[in-house]
Amino acid sequence: MGTSGAFLQRVRAARPLVHHITNVVTVSDCANATLFVGGLPIMANSPKEVEEMVGLAQALVLNIGTLHDEQIEAMLLAGRRANERRIPIVLDPVGAGATRHRTETAHRLLVELRIAVLKGNAGEIATLAGEQAEVRGVESGEVAEIVRPAHALSASTGGVVAVTGERDLVVQGVGAEWVGGGSPRMKTFVGSGCVAASLIGCFVGASPEQPYEATLAALRAYRKAAERAAAQNPMGPVAYRDLVYAELGRIAPEDL
Amino acid sequence: MGTSGAFLQRVRAARPLVHHITNVVTVSDCANATLFVGGLPIMANSPKEVEEMVGLAQALVLNIGTLHDEQIEAMLLAGRRANERRIPIVLDPVGAGATRHRTETAHRLLVELRIAVLKGNAGEIATLAGEQAEVRGVESGEVAEIVRPAHALSASTGGVVAVTGERDLVVQGVGAEWVGGGSPRMKTFVGSGCVAASLIGCFVGASPEQPYEATLAALRAYRKAAERAAAQNPMGPVAYRDLVYAELGRIAPEDL
Amino acid sequence: MGTSGAFLQRVRAARPLVHHITNVVTVSDCANATLFVGGLPIMANSPKEVEEMVGLAQALVLNIGTLHDEQIEAMLLAGRRANERRIPIVLDPVGAGATRHRTETAHRLLVELRIAVLKGNAGEIATLAGEQAEVRGVESGEVAEIVRPAHALSASTGGVVAVTGERDLVVQGVGAEWVGGGSPRMKTFVGSGCVAASLIGCFVGASPEQPYEATLAALRAYRKAAERAAAQNPMGPVAYRDLVYAELGRIAPEDL
Repeated sequence: MGTSGAFLQRVRAARPLVHHITNVVTVSDCANATLFVGGLPIMANSPKEVEEMVGLAQALVLNIGTLHDEQIEAMLLAGRRANERRIPIVLDPVGAGATRHRTETAHRLLVELRIAVLKGNAGEIATLAGEQAEVRGVESGEVAEIVRPAHALSASTGGVVAVTGERDLVVQGVGAEWVGGGSPRMKTFVGSGCVAASLIGCFVGASPEQPYEATLAALRAYRKAAERAAAQNPMGPVAYRDLVYAELGRIAPEDL
Repeated sequence: MGTSGAFLQRVRAARPLVHHITNVVTVSDCANATLFVGGLPIMANSPKEVEEMVGLAQALVLNIGTLHDEQIEAMLLAGRRANERRIPIVLDPVGAGATRHRTETAHRLLVELRIAVLKGNAGEIATLAGEQAEVRGVESGEVAEIVRPAHALSASTGGVVAVTGERDLVVQGVGAEWVGGGSPRMKTFVGSGCVAASLIGCFVGASPEQPYEATLAALRAYRKAAERAAAQNPMGPVAYRDLVYAELGRIAPEDL
Repeated sequence: MGTSGAFLQRVRAARPLVHHITNVVTVSDCANATLFVGGLPIMANSPKEVEEMVGLAQALVLNIGTLHDEQIEAMLLAGRRANERRIPIVLDPVGAGATRHRTETAHRLLVELRIAVLKGNAGEIATLAGEQAEVRGVESGEVAEIVRPAHALSASTGGVVAVTGERDLVVQGVGAEWVGGGSPRMKTFVGSGCVAASLIGCFVGASPEQPYEATLAALRAYRKAAERAAAQNPMGPVAYRDLVYAELGRIAPEDL
């Protein structure tokens, strides 16, 4: 069993409660994937309850995919409380670069909160690092020339930066590692990236002292599940997606 | 054909329109399950239209899974109109006990509205009955020591109380009955409890004079579908969930 | 390859970005179906960003299934910008006729915006044409006596009107064409109509100069996919739906 296996084992043992403040498109996928891999999902958006809710959680996942004002307020309230409690925050800046509102909101969350793991595609990460990036849809962005911006963001946030794409890049300080494998079919369904953030939430929630290694382990587990699902050659993107989710539950520490 | 079969038959004959004001995580599951079992789902949240919408419905399902202020207002408006029209309200107090906001909102709905069926897990029901309960995630809570709190709540609301868990308990006044069977796999996917509330909505909508028996029939139908799906041994929680939904449509009155 | 095949080919070549402002029930289905057929989905609801977002898009889909006030504001802002940019708007007036709020909002969108394609079931279209129509659930409405109201609406909006049902009717000015085929199973799952609007969005986004022909092509592609899925005889409505989605991705221009 490699190191990543130990992190999966901790997810299964700890059953981290992962509080999500997320978009309405993939919220069901995120909740299910969290449950399947071994965590407990809780979705709560109201400013009236997020501080108390995050007080029960082991990790907080913020996803700006379908932002509205009250949700931003909830993210800040929950985020501050998470920082006070020293539980890790994972930020998925969906669509940063597509609109000023998204870019500014992502920046605001990065400035006002201590983000343990920032996870985006190459376009989003390049945007947040201050580089120009063409954004077409939220799934866009190739991993290329992304190492420097990722390091720059990690330096400014003090946290882990994960860039998902054909391969995933995980960076913290001067450390950097690529995660390969997986399957090109991961791009054939909506929500693949959101689910990656949820899985990272589970792993860093169970191992808050090692966010870099936990992030790597989460992405390795996801790609292993994606690989196994692809090997079964299901017909169509929904069947494929459902198999990936199934494999998330079947994967064992010794598989990693 | 047992008594429960007759209730299913009435769902199929009446095709009750079930108005949901519900959370964004499982809203699609609830709409689909309602349709599959024989009802017609309508999801509407705006205070500007819920009174009129519930005027077309045979039942109202309120689920506080992802509360926000405007939705609470909509629940109260729709609920009052449902009470005036004497159509049954099913309340699913998702996460009551997890935050004060949820607990208080559930209490408020119980006080200001006449709730025909209150359905929750053991933790939620214990909380609303004024007992301490540890709440970890919304799927938590074992059915144990729950008979007394369920009776207490039924006495105070004057309605049916259903407690879902390993087995389900249905209580009204001094009457109480357990529903067994089903499958442990019902806990492997998100939304199992929300769907139970939708099914109860369909059954009480078609038999509003007999909410206790209709609730029992709904839970029996659900567990029968869950059992049949498990017997087919599908791989993974999503495939299992989809089979449960399929069996909801295939189940016949004589199967109950 | 018939004319419709050429329109599908253009979707695949152009990969139109389709901005949706839609309901929370089927938003995941709409995003996935858009991706599967060859488009790129983007879901954004905030008045703070929709104008900028629609500036990146090739089509805008407005669906009033779970309306709230801020969303109406976002629809008007995005719609005006879409009209300025001369990109097509598809309107799905879900539940028009069920409540005054929905009927009035649909009318308002039709008056204040130039709608390229209005797509509804017979009940919704009859309502918007000023006729009485019984509405039971949002999936209701048979295609009968609908030709005249559809022509009337096309005359007043200057756009295409599509009426979905057992067969689909597409009308523009004096032109009218029926689309048959498909499968009765299309009515067995929630979201079939919403997905039709998303597909129309993809097709008119790729062929904005020919909205009538593009709408026909979209509905033909959908019915062809539905037919192929039915031929595989999957068990249950969810498995059927997922196969329809899979066939949307597999269908080739020469199949139409």
